[in-house]
Amino acid sequence: MPSKESKTTPESVGIVSPSYFTVEETITLASQQTLDGYTIAYETYGTLNENKSNALLICHALSGNHHVAGRHTPNDAKPGWWDNFVGPGKPIDTDKFFVVCSNNLGGCHGSTGPNTVNLKTSLPYGPEFPIVTVEDWVNSQARLADHLGIEQWAAVVGGSIGGMQVLQWSIAYPDRLRNAVMIASAPKISAQNIAFNEVARQAIMRDPGFNGGHFYSSKDYPKQGLTLARMLGHITYLSDDVMRLKFGRELREGKLNFDFSAEFQVESYLRYQGETFSEHFDANTYLLMTKALDYFDPAAAHNHDLSLALQHIKAKFLLVSFTSDWRFSPERSEEVVDALLKTNKAVSYAKIDAPQGHDSFLLDIPRYKNLLKAFLQQVKV
Amino acid sequence: MPSKESKTTPESVGIVSPSYFTVEETITLASQQTLDGYTIAYETYGTLNENKSNALLICHALSGNHHVAGRHTPNDAKPGWWDNFVGPGKPIDTDKFFVVCSNNLGGCHGSTGPNTVNLKTSLPYGPEFPIVTVEDWVNSQARLADHLGIEQWAAVVGGSIGGMQVLQWSIAYPDRLRNAVMIASAPKISAQNIAFNEVARQAIMRDPGFNGGHFYSSKDYPKQGLTLARMLGHITYLSDDVMRLKFGRELREGKLNFDFSAEFQVESYLRYQGETFSEHFDANTYLLMTKALDYFDPAAAHNHDLSLALQHIKAKFLLVSFTSDWRFSPERSEEVVDALLKTNKAVSYAKIDAPQGHDSFLLDIPRYKNLLKAFLQQVKV
Repeated sequence: MPSKESKTTPESVGIVSPSYFTVEETITLASQQTLDGYTIAYETYGTLNENKSNALLICHALSGNHHVAGRHTPNDAKPGWWDNFVGPGKPIDTDKFFVVCSNNLGGCHGSTGPNTVNLKTSLPYGPEFPIVTVEDWVNSQARLADHLGIEQWAAVVGGSIGGMQVLQWSIAYPDRLRNAVMIASAPKISAQNIAFNEVARQAIMRDPGFNGGHFYSSKDYPKQGLTLARMLGHITYLSDDVMRLKFGRELREGKLNFDFSAEFQVESYLRYQGETFSEHFDANTYLLMTKALDYFDPAAAHNHDLSLALQHIKAKFLLVSFTSDWRFSPERSEEVVDALLKTNKAVSYAKIDAPQGHDSFLLDIPRYKNLLKAFLQQVKV
Repeated sequence: MPSKESKTTPESVGIVSPSYFTVEETITLASQQTLDGYTIAYETYGTLNENKSNALLICHALSGNHHVAGRHTPNDAKPGWWDNFVGPGKPIDTDKFFVVCSNNLGGCHGSTGPNTVNLKTSLPYGPEFPIVTVEDWVNSQARLADHLGIEQWAAVVGGSIGGMQVLQWSIAYPDRLRNAVMIASAPKISAQNIAFNEVARQAIMRDPGFNGGHFYSSKDYPKQGLTLARMLGHITYLSDDVMRLKFGRELREGKLNFDFSAEFQVESYLRYQGETFSEHFDANTYLLMTKALDYFDPAAAHNHDLSLALQHIKAKFLLVSFTSDWRFSPERSEEVVDALLKTNKAVSYAKIDAPQGHDSFLLDIPRYKNLLKAFLQQVKV
């Protein structure tokens, strides 16, 4: 919640703190494995109105978490991951909406996951943590909604695998959301995407520091594997064009060294991104998140007919894609648009011309930002 | 050279053996580092005619070698890597041409490279082997041509980084080739390509088995890193479309296992490809080949004006690209076409509609094969 400091920067939600919500009973997951309860870390911004009609859920992507906006301390180097979109007067306007975001189950930033202690064994779950799916995440978010007294979300919003959660919300709980905003996402990922995920997983699992996922009591951990996984991921989040614009073939020292140092700018950029990430993300969580991505395919239970999977949806949809996004290409969003239209659902769609690739969904692209703002302004609360 | 056995399969060059050519003097490389002589492994098919006008050089790609066609023994499981294109009556017709291909300097299949012994130290070169470039390869191929008494190639042909060698031949030795066939290639690689190469290199160099490149006397070697590098490479050689056609989201056991086994067909395919490769390719060579790819940029010395770099070319060019090749996209070939046209060179260009991605250049795609055949049929010898 905003504290006094936030008043000095009116466009920010200010200083925020996470909250925690615990489910005590045993939960059966999509895999049919069970969890003896769990805790979900979440943040909220803005104020829930009296009739609880202004709640907006943000679903985070693969490496995101519940810290969407604001800062945890006044000296925080960085605000939350979508601070440019969430705050007073911003597209996701905290003067209007009560914004909620939770760390996905299996995550590594406060929710129960591989790096938290299993009360049964008094040890971190590690590789014993069960596979979680987009369905499981949405179910846990529904329990959080119950806990917060939110019967129906004004909107559920997410990009990438966050967008898959938006779609799953609209399928599994058609009465519990009025609007759905699915950005740079897909109704299922392609074989190429699974292949990239598999290389990332193998990089982690083949790192001797991984030790079968048991690395929490060791000094070693799969730092190299996680670095490689993130370097690879990062390439797929950017377009070829934006890499050309950003790095071209520029040399760090202006000349070839004829050795294996990071000679080209793009090499040092990737190494830095990978290594930084490897220092604050859990390798077991990374594995789980990529699996959830691979598995999501709501049409599979409907003879691969997506429009059948979407037939009971009631939410009004906005889909957004980006021209240069080759990880979740516009065609993937358009499959959802077509399936929604086929069953006469309310859907708006915008393909935004942007060179930044998949990462576009996080960026200050005016047409995209204005579109999201306009869509959410017309949401009645 | 074909032996008797070849007569039983008239469309094959039959049983072949590599030859070796040694340069004894000290050579200065593009890096200004030196090599105290080197040996080049090569194969030839067909017969050099009396006036030595029918010689055709094939330049191999990153993981290729000099064994282009035929088999080394009657029981060889597989023929050379381009056996479908090279042989009597095939597009590269050994009834007409005397075909030569050499293993690139720094390679791991018979030419001097990291896994061969440095006579100075009596140990394998390992990481002490100098960085080699496309220019160095072409220079060594020119020495081989001298050795074979070939003053001028009827044609120089290559795909991918082999195509870069074709371009370099036409720039460095304009009088020594009459025709140049550059397939699925580029005048330089993009930042995205460098980025993929860098992830592959880091996968190898961060593998504890790499040991700074000194692994020849150890039981261990960077098997995991090389596996990852190849898995990643493989994704970029295929198109998203062909992966969808080939694997879709098919499950190996028809159901989700909710674990980290290879559940999707594409996962087991990639693991198999990566692991097989890691058993017969040298990690230090892989590093060298990717560096040669990164460095090639003949326009750099001409103020980044490619047409200036190509101004003295005399060869007649054929360029071929494939619509679904995103590693070396048609636009990259078209940069060469445009630069050649700008300086009034003879150039033909075909963009072949094929879903198979970069790998297309190795495949039996009729329009492509017929095109290559027709172009080489009109070559006068």
